[in-house]
Amino acid sequence: MNGIKILSPATVANFVCGFDILGFSLQFPFDEIFLYKSNDPGIRMNRIYGSKLPENPNKNVAFVALQALLNKYNNNKNKIIGFELELIKNIHPGSGIGSSAASAAGVVFGANILLGNPFNTMQLIRFAMEGERVSSGTAHADNVSPALLGGITLVRSYQPLDITKLHCPRELWVSIIHPKIEIKTSDARNILKQKILMTDAIRQLGNIGALVAGLYQENYELISRSLEDVIVEPIRAILIPAFYELKIKCKKIGALGGGISGSGPSVFMLSKGNYTAKKVTEMMNRVYDPLRIDYKTYTSPINKKGVQCIKMI
Amino acid sequence: MNGIKILSPATVANFVCGFDILGFSLQFPFDEIFLYKSNDPGIRMNRIYGSKLPENPNKNVAFVALQALLNKYNNNKNKIIGFELELIKNIHPGSGIGSSAASAAGVVFGANILLGNPFNTMQLIRFAMEGERVSSGTAHADNVSPALLGGITLVRSYQPLDITKLHCPRELWVSIIHPKIEIKTSDARNILKQKILMTDAIRQLGNIGALVAGLYQENYELISRSLEDVIVEPIRAILIPAFYELKIKCKKIGALGGGISGSGPSVFMLSKGNYTAKKVTEMMNRVYDPLRIDYKTYTSPINKKGVQCIKMI
Repeated sequence: MNGIKILSPATVANFVCGFDILGFSLQFPFDEIFLYKSNDPGIRMNRIYGSKLPENPNKNVAFVALQALLNKYNNNKNKIIGFELELIKNIHPGSGIGSSAASAAGVVFGANILLGNPFNTMQLIRFAMEGERVSSGTAHADNVSPALLGGITLVRSYQPLDITKLHCPRELWVSIIHPKIEIKTSDARNILKQKILMTDAIRQLGNIGALVAGLYQENYELISRSLEDVIVEPIRAILIPAFYELKIKCKKIGALGGGISGSGPSVFMLSKGNYTAKKVTEMMNRVYDPLRIDYKTYTSPINKKGVQCIKMI
Repeated sequence: MNGIKILSPATVANFVCGFDILGFSLQFPFDEIFLYKSNDPGIRMNRIYGSKLPENPNKNVAFVALQALLNKYNNNKNKIIGFELELIKNIHPGSGIGSSAASAAGVVFGANILLGNPFNTMQLIRFAMEGERVSSGTAHADNVSPALLGGITLVRSYQPLDITKLHCPRELWVSIIHPKIEIKTSDARNILKQKILMTDAIRQLGNIGALVAGLYQENYELISRSLEDVIVEPIRAILIPAFYELKIKCKKIGALGGGISGSGPSVFMLSKGNYTAKKVTEMMNRVYDPLRIDYKTYTSPINKKGVQCIKMI
């Protein structure tokens, strides 16, 4: 076995009241990654389709994540090897649905299989986080965790790194709209306040606790009531055209709730079942059609498996 | 049926990272309540054993909670009735383990049975909260909810009131120490800050989410790691003699973790299983023995049923 084809999913971080800690994996869209093991040391990025990514390898997420894995592997006195890589980027960089995480998670997942699984998933998450560091400046784990573990994940702590996969109700579907405007992660972060009201923190604690309970109970009404963010959304919503109109109209036709995906500009809504999710996606189209802003929408179940190998080459 | 005997349990609120929202019910200690239905309107407090409670009925928790229920019942054009009441207070007022909640929850639970169950549990919680209002100045629900629902409960929101019962792992046991010093709830509240750091809020959100997940997963290690409060405990710990010594020594011999019960002065520690919990309680004794502070300790499983009727009279 010398080569492998990987599908690496889009992910939603900052899952409403779970700012910086809760994320989930989508079935659609996904990146396609072809990875080949080579006896020549180093990493060669052969082709990238669908998006312009940094040519400087030290700024390329996939390269940096793979290099982190390779450093560890080669340090362990294994036979020195290298990789060749092709990326088909279907997830648009800057969309807020984990484009960089898909690259980072996909390559380390694939490389691990090609090397005979020397690393466990927590180690793969750490390598992929190095990719995230070059993309956004911080080695955050809330996209690469659901990409690698699948389903819904919670990052309890970074020091030490502590991640758990949550139960995911069977009928949880997602509608996504990606308005093609640019929001820089650093800008979205800079507008946040360093201090928040204790009363807001307590409300958010109640919501996150109840959201996790609602997921385990498969209680869609409790999930819906808990999808409230009183800390970040009120500040960031202004960055996204028609955010509140989207939210109100989608909830009116049956969406459980939703919010800003990552640091935007994508917005997601959760629904119970495929039928409602499709209606919600259509509503997203209807809200955005008159705005003269280019956009793309997706309807997807939550992807319980995460990144997958679909072919050995 | 004219009379009833009720056992109403002690409860722990401010369950570590779940400040103001998470609480649980204990098997020991409990108050004993005798309640009799009478054709004479009004409420007569016949006897109170074990503690001095306010003689002014409008400041008496049991009276006010029962009156709230009675007002609703009599307003609904039922035949006007009254109650006679005896209380045996085993839970010391001011101990921080829900003494007022036990009175309030117990009387409304008993009255509801004597009246043929006209009210549901959420209504009973509201009546009992009126009792809490006269006791502490705010109609908080984080003690009366676990007292009435049993097990571990989460108050997601007060406006509207939204409470859910969480899964409770079978082997979760509690050690409690009640140092007999006075901490006024109002003082404990006044030393808290109105604003907190966003980074602390995020850490607390991770902990509460992971704690709820740990309870559902019955994952004692995850529960243990999540029992961390970076917001309230660092401020209130100074109110309780030897707090950190208690915590460190109890964890060293196997406690999962713990914190201040309610607004103190009681401190609780959770353990997996009866055997460890008893050892932890003994450690509490050993830490407090040299301090020349009177204290009382308890070892109890979490009480999954909450308040109970044990006899019809």
